Amino acid sequence: MNLFGGIRLKYVYFFEEGSKEMKNLLGGKGSNLCEMANLGLPVPKGFVISTEACIKFFDSNDFPEGLEQEINSALQKLEERTGKKFDSTENPLLVSVRSGARVSMPGMMDTVLNLGLNEKTIFAMTEKTQNKRFVLDSFRRFIQMFSNVVLGLNHDDFEEILEKEKSFSGVKFDFELTESSLEKIIIQYKALVEKETKKPFPENPKEQLLLSVKAVFSSWNNKRAITYRKLNNIPDDWGTGVIVQEMVFGNLGNDSGTGVCFTRNPSDGTKGLYGEFLLNAQGEDVVAGIRTPKKISELTDVMPEIFEQLSSFAVNLEKHYKDMQDMEFTIEKNKLFVLQTRNGKRTSSAAIRIAVEMVEENLFSKTDALMKIDSVHLNQLLHKRIDAHQELTEIASGLNASPGAATGKIVFDANKAESFGETENIILVRTETSPDDIHGMIGSKGILTARGGMTSHAAVVARGMGKPCVAGCEEIKIDYKTREMHVKDLTLKEMDFISIDGTTGKVFLGEVKLIDPKPDEFFSRILEWADEIKLLGVRTNADTPKDARKARELGAQGIGLCRTEHMFFEPERLPIMQKMILSDSTQERKKYLNQLEAMQRTDFEGILEAMNSLPVTIRLIDPPLHEFLPSREDLIERITELKNLVDSRDDSKLIAELNEKKFLLKKVNELHESNPMLGFRGCRLGIVYPEIIEMQTKAIAEAAKNLKEKGLNPKPEIMVPLVGIAKELELSRKIIEKVLNEIIPNEKILIGTMIELPRAALIADEIALHADFFSFGTNDLTQTTFGFSRDDVEGKFLNKYIEQKILLISPFVSLDTKGVGKLMETAVALAKKSKPNLKIGICGEHGGDPDSIEFCHSLGLNYVSCSPFRVPIARLAAAQAVIRKKQ
Amino acid sequence: MNLFGGIRLKYVYFFEEGSKEMKNLLGGKGSNLCEMANLGLPVPKGFVISTEACIKFFDSNDFPEGLEQEINSALQKLEERTGKKFDSTENPLLVSVRSGARVSMPGMMDTVLNLGLNEKTIFAMTEKTQNKRFVLDSFRRFIQMFSNVVLGLNHDDFEEILEKEKSFSGVKFDFELTESSLEKIIIQYKALVEKETKKPFPENPKEQLLLSVKAVFSSWNNKRAITYRKLNNIPDDWGTGVIVQEMVFGNLGNDSGTGVCFTRNPSDGTKGLYGEFLLNAQGEDVVAGIRTPKKISELTDVMPEIFEQLSSFAVNLEKHYKDMQDMEFTIEKNKLFVLQTRNGKRTSSAAIRIAVEMVEENLFSKTDALMKIDSVHLNQLLHKRIDAHQELTEIASGLNASPGAATGKIVFDANKAESFGETENIILVRTETSPDDIHGMIGSKGILTARGGMTSHAAVVARGMGKPCVAGCEEIKIDYKTREMHVKDLTLKEMDFISIDGTTGKVFLGEVKLIDPKPDEFFSRILEWADEIKLLGVRTNADTPKDARKARELGAQGIGLCRTEHMFFEPERLPIMQKMILSDSTQERKKYLNQLEAMQRTDFEGILEAMNSLPVTIRLIDPPLHEFLPSREDLIERITELKNLVDSRDDSKLIAELNEKKFLLKKVNELHESNPMLGFRGCRLGIVYPEIIEMQTKAIAEAAKNLKEKGLNPKPEIMVPLVGIAKELELSRKIIEKVLNEIIPNEKILIGTMIELPRAALIADEIALHADFFSFGTNDLTQTTFGFSRDDVEGKFLNKYIEQKILLISPFVSLDTKGVGKLMETAVALAKKSKPNLKIGICGEHGGDPDSIEFCHSLGLNYVSCSPFRVPIARLAAAQAVIRKKQ
Repeated sequence: MNLFGGIRLKYVYFFEEGSKEMKNLLGGKGSNLCEMANLGLPVPKGFVISTEACIKFFDSNDFPEGLEQEINSALQKLEERTGKKFDSTENPLLVSVRSGARVSMPGMMDTVLNLGLNEKTIFAMTEKTQNKRFVLDSFRRFIQMFSNVVLGLNHDDFEEILEKEKSFSGVKFDFELTESSLEKIIIQYKALVEKETKKPFPENPKEQLLLSVKAVFSSWNNKRAITYRKLNNIPDDWGTGVIVQEMVFGNLGNDSGTGVCFTRNPSDGTKGLYGEFLLNAQGEDVVAGIRTPKKISELTDVMPEIFEQLSSFAVNLEKHYKDMQDMEFTIEKNKLFVLQTRNGKRTSSAAIRIAVEMVEENLFSKTDALMKIDSVHLNQLLHKRIDAHQELTEIASGLNASPGAATGKIVFDANKAESFGETENIILVRTETSPDDIHGMIGSKGILTARGGMTSHAAVVARGMGKPCVAGCEEIKIDYKTREMHVKDLTLKEMDFISIDGTTGKVFLGEVKLIDPKPDEFFSRILEWADEIKLLGVRTNADTPKDARKARELGAQGIGLCRTEHMFFEPERLPIMQKMILSDSTQERKKYLNQLEAMQRTDFEGILEAMNSLPVTIRLIDPPLHEFLPSREDLIERITELKNLVDSRDDSKLIAELNEKKFLLKKVNELHESNPMLGFRGCRLGIVYPEIIEMQTKAIAEAAKNLKEKGLNPKPEIMVPLVGIAKELELSRKIIEKVLNEIIPNEKILIGTMIELPRAALIADEIALHADFFSFGTNDLTQTTFGFSRDDVEGKFLNKYIEQKILLISPFVSLDTKGVGKLMETAVALAKKSKPNLKIGICGEHGGDPDSIEFCHSLGLNYVSCSPFRVPIARLAAAQAVIRKKQ
Repeated sequence: MNLFGGIRLKYVYFFEEGSKEMKNLLGGKGSNLCEMANLGLPVPKGFVISTEACIKFFDSNDFPEGLEQEINSALQKLEERTGKKFDSTENPLLVSVRSGARVSMPGMMDTVLNLGLNEKTIFAMTEKTQNKRFVLDSFRRFIQMFSNVVLGLNHDDFEEILEKEKSFSGVKFDFELTESSLEKIIIQYKALVEKETKKPFPENPKEQLLLSVKAVFSSWNNKRAITYRKLNNIPDDWGTGVIVQEMVFGNLGNDSGTGVCFTRNPSDGTKGLYGEFLLNAQGEDVVAGIRTPKKISELTDVMPEIFEQLSSFAVNLEKHYKDMQDMEFTIEKNKLFVLQTRNGKRTSSAAIRIAVEMVEENLFSKTDALMKIDSVHLNQLLHKRIDAHQELTEIASGLNASPGAATGKIVFDANKAESFGETENIILVRTETSPDDIHGMIGSKGILTARGGMTSHAAVVARGMGKPCVAGCEEIKIDYKTREMHVKDLTLKEMDFISIDGTTGKVFLGEVKLIDPKPDEFFSRILEWADEIKLLGVRTNADTPKDARKARELGAQGIGLCRTEHMFFEPERLPIMQKMILSDSTQERKKYLNQLEAMQRTDFEGILEAMNSLPVTIRLIDPPLHEFLPSREDLIERITELKNLVDSRDDSKLIAELNEKKFLLKKVNELHESNPMLGFRGCRLGIVYPEIIEMQTKAIAEAAKNLKEKGLNPKPEIMVPLVGIAKELELSRKIIEKVLNEIIPNEKILIGTMIELPRAALIADEIALHADFFSFGTNDLTQTTFGFSRDDVEGKFLNKYIEQKILLISPFVSLDTKGVGKLMETAVALAKKSKPNLKIGICGEHGGDPDSIEFCHSLGLNYVSCSPFRVPIARLAAAQAVIRKKQ
């Protein structure tokens, strides 16, 4: 019984008492050692002290009641099992004391090796190994490690002694030190300990052990471990397990050695052992990099039986863990010990190949294979990326606004980017981009902006174009006059080289080597399996034939969101669009709309053709009209300038410009909105100016008609944005249907709406009566539900919120199931009440986020829609959602 | 059986078959005639054709099956009852044919009088009345009316004939025409009819009747009736009833007459007949305005018995209808006929007095009295208003942003308004107001702006100050340079007189007479009764001690929303606020916050003292910080100017200003937001800059402490705005509690939050765990739920939406119960699950809207909070909600 009256916990577990399922209690390393021991693999004997003991330790900063006794009896048992004894002058027991948390935190916590050595046992060890130098060196290392880890002494003070002796004896490397040098060093080490701690170095192995265990516990709370946990979202209250294990030595001669190996190639997934080893060495020697390790395949030559044994262990471990393993091993005098195994880290392409091949090897089912792949990592295979095997100089970082990498010459304006872009790789660098920059963006390999969020013009357009973009990189300051950019102390001129990684948001100096994407047969195979299982349709968000084709190639089953407004931003169209907006009468407006209609018809023909026989959901105009006009600030600046110029000289051209700009400003002021996102946009435009959506419907209908006549099978669907009141859709629908009936009276074109306002979700039953389909616009729905303007909060306080754990992840990245999701749930339930078979999809950016896809699956949606390059991710995530739900 | 197999409807009802409950079927006028007939009042005999017949008529544009027979047999019965007969040469029956819809649509539909006159019956009538001129004139009028209403001939053509004859015989008025003139006119009228219709004027009274009934039916769909219905939200499918009734004549000599009277004075409510009459006259003569009617009291002198009879009818009708009546009567040869009765229209003060006195007269209960008052009209009694008894020249209209009327001289800038305001009545006229104009607003009697919505700076501040304001009056153009304003063709100079009515949004030319508000004893009585019944508490939204006192006087039970940011806009504080915002370090920021703290403490002392012993909910800072800084546009304009100036002359002062402005612009740009409403504001500010809310809490705590020490009982409550995530409130609460514990550790200060984001409503159970109370901020909740930025939509398309009936009323005026209300319901249910006794109120502007108050009552909220002048409305509406729910 403990103080609180409960039954006392068991703290110490021998390997046979544990299993891989006990990770939480014994830590990852500890539970895997247990598992291997139970599998009959040769693991050095030992036991694990549980994470619970660690947690209790923190309560009183001392061992919990009973732990010391448990350690003592475990030690006694270990002595019996090994036939060795602490402090024995004949066959002394040496152990290692290691940390091992629930998840691997490599190098973050402390380890003590060779514990058990003292003035008495070194003689026995020398006798036993017939290698005095090895024993002295081990003792020297033990004192240094113990003093640092357990006694808290400064590592550098010991290094100083070591260095002095090396220079005194004229040697360069540690291993060149003679036995007598080592003896001198040991004497000096001990003197240093006594001087610093006012006590002699502890000679009693039991005392060494208990102190070491406490030290390893405490290392859970050292600064670097805390930082690591914070970065990796690991809870502070998990604690670490401690493994006490008999030492084995790979440095006892050429019949000994050490190595690490993967059961398959972690970079491409090829089957077969992959790794390195060194003879007559310990783990540290591999790390130190003094000797070059050999490829594991060479082990066949020097130790064929050991290689055989290792290979068979690999096969067994893979069968057992049903995953590729990363093993550490030591050979002590021709005997192989496995020191650790864990699931090996691998690249995305290796992960896919391994999963596919393991299915073929009957290691697991297709379903299991699908669950092994992290869908987000598929992304890596679809974009150019920066070759990791090169020196990189990171100079800044911004938002990872559009994935992929690009390298090229800096250009600060769109015209230049367009012209140079024909012959060179150009990175367009702007404070912000605007519709005026589109041609420059087309001409560039990538875009870098100093301002703007994930929905800024640059970000949206770049994603649409499939070009890499780093946005909102606030560290860079651009001086358009001197044509320079400044980053910290660095100044870069136009035509200097720069590289950006839109997948990570990082910016690098100079030109870098890129790797081309190449999805292989394994990639296709895994996605075919995904398609067999998934229930959700996967469509794409695409505004151009090129994107549509790309998405189709990647498996898209249609377009879920084709935005029509970007088409108006093209250089030859924008002026017409502006004239349309500035029109004073319906008649005048219609004149310009007619011109736009012809252009939109061509766009739609292209997209419908690319998606022939698959549905294409076209959203009618959405943004507020002022987005198509010059900014208020620019106009005011120019007008003030012109006023001054006109004052000083009477130039009729200037006066004309002044008047024109004044008129424009008047109009812009009239259209100005304090909160454009909540203003005159979406279906509200079409209700006040029906002629706009009449034009768009006409363009769609005529495009469909033309393709039909060419023998194709176009399937347009028309989507009305921003509905919040049932009557809005009812009226819009009437306008649309009238036009459709005039042009293609016999075609059944679906007319639906986006659900992107809280009110739309709340009255979805009423809205459903006028809709053939719903599509959740979760970007806007998230903005209104949270009261978050994405552009404003991402730069300003969202990071702070995530840092302070007010939010765990941006709700723009992964659906907020509690709030936004609740509205979606309400909407689905209400809509199905009115129309049980209503088709419902999602076309917000969440459509490409695996967690959000899982949520959509659980809501019973019909499809998700995402950007072309996310289509494979969505296919996989949709299959995983089905599997996870069944489990 | 009709065509559809149903039982044929009954279409015609004699008065004894109907009652006042049958308004929908028989129309208002018809059902009241039935009621009076059943009460035994002398009503000319007749019958009603139902609204159902009218509706059926529209189906086929002809009488429905059976109607004609029913009319015929009713006519026969009427002939029996009156002893008169159509077409009789001895005692001919003359009837009126009138419309009468469910609700009164005065003058919108058609009427035919004197029907039954023809060449035969005029002789009998002359015989009977011994008044040939009267008969000829009646015939002339009948032909004219019938030809216009039934035959569709042009009224003017008949007037032309009449005018010609008048000028030929040299007379000025119709009544001066001789019998022979009238005979000539009748001949010409008939000739005109025959020429235009190719048929003689119909002589058969039955034919006349059937045609007239059809014409009255059809008049339901004339243009002016349709327009009227649209304006008054009357459904088009109600149809009109038609009343066929024996004619009575008030113009048969001095023993005859006609008049209208109210049973009580409709302008002040005093008991006793109030109205006018004319002897020897018909209704039209009163309207024509040629003879001046006499006061009803004078009827005692000329016809004392009739007056007695009328008085007793009045008493009976009031008893029966339990309401003040508006009667029409005719005296035909000393016999009194009541032609119509209906509930009389009255002023707000009359309505209140009548309701109170009718309770004293035991006509009905207090509960009934409360239900008789339209709570919105109470408003009229609390603000200065424009005297209706004067000539008014309306020149423009805008939004009724803050109620009450003001008259004074135009001033275009705040400084001038402040200085002139000390001695004269000033109306401050601005394109928009900004924080820099506050002192001018204080100095003015009223504010008129050309731009901005109901939540614009001018509107919000004016309501706060209780000053009249007309905002967003887009017709006026202000030229600050010439110091003129233009409205249509009118130009007004500074110091010209103007008047505004903030209750209606109208703007008038020149100085007008205003009436002071004077709530009387009846007003107090009715509100006392309301307080006895209501369950909702009524608090006020007030930011100053003056408002707090006013609200308390009007019955407020505390403050539900005290905004703290307006305090920072005061001229001596704004610069400190700006310095605080521009601070680069927490330390610097704290310096300025300390200065602000002292000022806020004084504010809070004043408000808490004014509301002594009543709760005062203080909301922490809410708006985005850039609202306190100059606008981007102004800065850009000035910087461009300065650059030009600096270019032309090297003036160190100018350069200094340029640099300062550039620095400011940089900061403003940093803080700039695309959608500030959804940006860095509310509790988000306090989480990033805890020092700001620490300062505010300190000011509140110290104010409370100081008042306590003076023996008062301050009851502050602290409210955190814009919470959408439970952790936001948890963190804010920690910050607040820490400060409270330092200053007033023993006081229990409630800490709560606003529910003003959809997400807050959806996770109200989680938020409730950290809250002592909730207050619905329905302004913002409406904005986010609908995706409506109030400032943007009110001017741009909300009117259009109401016109097109997409919305029936602005959701900012009356709570959208379907959408926003659903979220509130969810929030209440979730919150009570976590904390069954959580106090929940509402402090959006809906807190003063009767329909919204009823909804809040039904949700079981604890209180509503509204602007001071709406407190009486809220008290009444809260009582009405209780009564209505019981019913």
